[in-house]
Amino acid sequence: MKEIEKASAEIKNLKSELYAEDFLLTWDKSVEELKVILTIAQGLKLLHHANVSCRLFDSGLAVSQFRDNSTRTRFSFASACNLLGLAVQDLDEGKSQIAHGETVRETANMISFLTEVIGIRDDLFLGAGHAYMLEEGRALDDGFKEGVLPRRPVIVNLQCDVDHPTQSMADLLHLEQYFGGLEKLRGKKIAMSWACSPSYGKPLSVPQAIIGLMTRFGMNVVLAHPEGYGLIPEVVDLAGRQAKACGGSFAVTGSMDDAFKGADVVYPKSWAPYRVMERRTALLRENNSSGLRDLEKECLENNARFKDWECTEARMKHTRDGTALYMHCLPADISGVFCAQGEVQDGVFERYRIETYKEAGYKPYIIAAMILAAKFKDPASVLERLAAQKVQRVRF
Amino acid sequence: MKEIEKASAEIKNLKSELYAEDFLLTWDKSVEELKVILTIAQGLKLLHHANVSCRLFDSGLAVSQFRDNSTRTRFSFASACNLLGLAVQDLDEGKSQIAHGETVRETANMISFLTEVIGIRDDLFLGAGHAYMLEEGRALDDGFKEGVLPRRPVIVNLQCDVDHPTQSMADLLHLEQYFGGLEKLRGKKIAMSWACSPSYGKPLSVPQAIIGLMTRFGMNVVLAHPEGYGLIPEVVDLAGRQAKACGGSFAVTGSMDDAFKGADVVYPKSWAPYRVMERRTALLRENNSSGLRDLEKECLENNARFKDWECTEARMKHTRDGTALYMHCLPADISGVFCAQGEVQDGVFERYRIETYKEAGYKPYIIAAMILAAKFKDPASVLERLAAQKVQRVRF
Amino acid sequence: MKEIEKASAEIKNLKSELYAEDFLLTWDKSVEELKVILTIAQGLKLLHHANVSCRLFDSGLAVSQFRDNSTRTRFSFASACNLLGLAVQDLDEGKSQIAHGETVRETANMISFLTEVIGIRDDLFLGAGHAYMLEEGRALDDGFKEGVLPRRPVIVNLQCDVDHPTQSMADLLHLEQYFGGLEKLRGKKIAMSWACSPSYGKPLSVPQAIIGLMTRFGMNVVLAHPEGYGLIPEVVDLAGRQAKACGGSFAVTGSMDDAFKGADVVYPKSWAPYRVMERRTALLRENNSSGLRDLEKECLENNARFKDWECTEARMKHTRDGTALYMHCLPADISGVFCAQGEVQDGVFERYRIETYKEAGYKPYIIAAMILAAKFKDPASVLERLAAQKVQRVRF
Repeated sequence: MKEIEKASAEIKNLKSELYAEDFLLTWDKSVEELKVILTIAQGLKLLHHANVSCRLFDSGLAVSQFRDNSTRTRFSFASACNLLGLAVQDLDEGKSQIAHGETVRETANMISFLTEVIGIRDDLFLGAGHAYMLEEGRALDDGFKEGVLPRRPVIVNLQCDVDHPTQSMADLLHLEQYFGGLEKLRGKKIAMSWACSPSYGKPLSVPQAIIGLMTRFGMNVVLAHPEGYGLIPEVVDLAGRQAKACGGSFAVTGSMDDAFKGADVVYPKSWAPYRVMERRTALLRENNSSGLRDLEKECLENNARFKDWECTEARMKHTRDGTALYMHCLPADISGVFCAQGEVQDGVFERYRIETYKEAGYKPYIIAAMILAAKFKDPASVLERLAAQKVQRVRF
Repeated sequence: MKEIEKASAEIKNLKSELYAEDFLLTWDKSVEELKVILTIAQGLKLLHHANVSCRLFDSGLAVSQFRDNSTRTRFSFASACNLLGLAVQDLDEGKSQIAHGETVRETANMISFLTEVIGIRDDLFLGAGHAYMLEEGRALDDGFKEGVLPRRPVIVNLQCDVDHPTQSMADLLHLEQYFGGLEKLRGKKIAMSWACSPSYGKPLSVPQAIIGLMTRFGMNVVLAHPEGYGLIPEVVDLAGRQAKACGGSFAVTGSMDDAFKGADVVYPKSWAPYRVMERRTALLRENNSSGLRDLEKECLENNARFKDWECTEARMKHTRDGTALYMHCLPADISGVFCAQGEVQDGVFERYRIETYKEAGYKPYIIAAMILAAKFKDPASVLERLAAQKVQRVRF
Repeated sequence: MKEIEKASAEIKNLKSELYAEDFLLTWDKSVEELKVILTIAQGLKLLHHANVSCRLFDSGLAVSQFRDNSTRTRFSFASACNLLGLAVQDLDEGKSQIAHGETVRETANMISFLTEVIGIRDDLFLGAGHAYMLEEGRALDDGFKEGVLPRRPVIVNLQCDVDHPTQSMADLLHLEQYFGGLEKLRGKKIAMSWACSPSYGKPLSVPQAIIGLMTRFGMNVVLAHPEGYGLIPEVVDLAGRQAKACGGSFAVTGSMDDAFKGADVVYPKSWAPYRVMERRTALLRENNSSGLRDLEKECLENNARFKDWECTEARMKHTRDGTALYMHCLPADISGVFCAQGEVQDGVFERYRIETYKEAGYKPYIIAAMILAAKFKDPASVLERLAAQKVQRVRF
């Protein structure tokens, strides 16, 4: 297969040290490493569409640890693991938070004796999710070093409080495909904008993931939100530094209109203010349900002040040629469908609906690519051998 | 394997267009198509018993979507998918009903990027289950047409408000085996009879499935129930029309004794009246728990008026030669075991217990046959190739 | 592979009739049969570590039936089944206890049409768990004999009220590895001691499993507990008889110090008194929650009288050379970590932490060995053929 040869050649030209490493934050990885992931993901998609089996494991477990609800990511992870031959086993911690200290260290080992990968979603507690993954990673390092584990399972971040790398990498692959190459993204304007929603407490990880990733590919990234809806300051700073280093730009604005003006891509999405998430984390920790109710009420009232932050047809008209690509991690709060007034007008969403589905469709391949890159020293030759071997995924 | 050659030859002689089609209602399929399913199911059972692997997929997901409790069908679906090489991933919607409109359309795509089959049980709401499956099917058509999905997953109805095709087809295969051929069913009398149970709200789909299927194979089908315990009128009409067209007969009676008289097969089973199910659906929709309690009380009192509707030894004596085959989808309400007085006397059930287990044992193969026929254009040659390839299911 | 040849030769020298038999209690098996399990487990571990696939089933279900919470054993069972090529399907009975009589008989068959193994944890009710497994086993015998099931699935006891064989066999394998051979265990002293915990109602099956197994390998087994904390009398008697027959000794003492003195191995662990478990079982059966609360209070107060029963550094000093091996089935109640005062001091646990992880790490292989021995007539040649075939578990 010609395309696989091409993908393999590209990967070989890129310097990467993804082997045996967890994938927690995109900014922990070099741009070349991110390109390797994108290329593997495309290769796996090609193979799958050509009915070539991508099974690399004859047996092995993949543990999914969802500390928050999920349908989409759960299915993406299940699909990715199944594609490679791993069986998913859920770690259901019940409603209680796993105690820290001994237990994380112990549990990490107990679930890993024959495990290849652990996918974790932990986005409810600000300051906790990423820290938890680091802690679990150290426990696995320890177990491997001490001879408890025959192989070190790798962790894939399926959304934490800081980053959502499987989402943003799928988004990036969508942009690459849509515009015809990563190089085409240079100089393009992307508006990552807050949008109003009648819900509250949505994580910050998607907008943070977008500004933390797109600033590395020469895009002009604009973050827009009402006053008081800021993201984690360190991530905002990082986005600025990265834009400078990578030849793009990064700006923060308090106007959705400014953000949309001349944009090539818009990503309007609701999130809770950083300060609110901090208070919410404290209340969740102390199990303070009346406090949580009060906070929700306060926040929804506050959100209501910004109902105008909606992705409307009118605003879309002011994007480049009126045809900016609309993106969303789904599900979107569509005005007039799920709520009176939400993140996006029905007509806008409907026009880009199929594009958002395609955007979501890259996620299983991105996750599979992350696993493949972390478990195989030479992913380029893995792709080549899969293509050469040509085992039919669906037989006969 | 001689039997597989025979099965393959039979399939080739039958005209069918099952490929890429959902299996929602048996009466959507031609008699020849139903025969194809039965023959594939027998073929798969033969192969499995001969320790020949029936694995057709090297990877691929099977989604199970149970909108009502299930143990038997859950295991049948899991067994069928595993037999063919698919990994089951549950879609757990929690207690809430999925909102209609956007969400069904979106969810259907989100769970399907690498999915081959979706098994759905949705039997709680009259007027909703079948409609839901149609809606999900349209969403999948759309996703496939628009290039979101590389393959169109097929839907298998694991019980809706109208039909329960995996049950009735397993029942039909049981009858075929028991009487020595489908042709032997011509002229045989089957009594699908209501029976009393100290529970309430059992779906109508089993009796509807039986009268909707058995009337197509030349059987004399008698539906018996007390006044007020009617089924969905359209299905009853359909049964009558089918009997006329297929050389059997269909009658409705208000007497269990009449139904049993001279019967070759009896299928005594409780269900809730159609009108009750309509009221129940409305109450469930509005989450009216006191209304549901009142309705339950009313219904149980009403059921109690018909305690005499029991499959007794005395009634069995009046079947043909006193030896009619007793059938049940299980679990049966056995008098003196789970309740004072139920659907069937202990002695009758015990005599046919093993037969009912065998009846249930066809379901995994029926489901696997439905999947195989929908995913492979030439099922006859698939069976042949599996038999020729002779991979051991259990090695060494 | 030399080691596999050696393992195979060992197995061939041992007389065993494990084929087609459930694994419910270690004392139902001969010492030679237990050695076969240990040897298979080591063989599978070797193969897995050498990246040789141990897949023996191309398809097939493994049913897990957890009637009590579990993380560790759930993952061990999932890992074992996956290693051999089986897909796990959970039987979730909800919160209610399965009714006895018809239903166990029926359910056992309904979940088994294409099932190879059923793993059951049922340890909550004294007098019920082992009885339940026997009942399910009889139902499977019946279904197989009557032609309902093409193969008789085997049951693996994942912890009942009487024994916990996958735990104790993993412990025994750990001892074998730690001391350099089963023969080295002869004459070694193991202290199975009660220890204090701020929880209550822990099953008796672990201490019973240990005294019921280790007395068969020539060890000097000492059971220590405060007055009133006795185990099931029949198991204690059995331990005594076995010790006599196998050349070791068995003693019961009321002093933790006595038990630890000169011990080569210590296993300090909390459990509820037998009499308390009897009362608890009765209260659980009648769903008496206030009674359960009262009993818990009474028991915790009683436990508090024995806070001194702790595995301390001081006590460890009196073991043989002060270096006895500390064992635990995990998770341990570590003083100062999860509770003010618990089963073991922090420093002691920390020193043996990695050893307890390794101890736990044998469980997946023990379970896989139990399945393999019950499903294959000639396990020695299965190991040889796996080694000769040398399919890579992780490809390329």
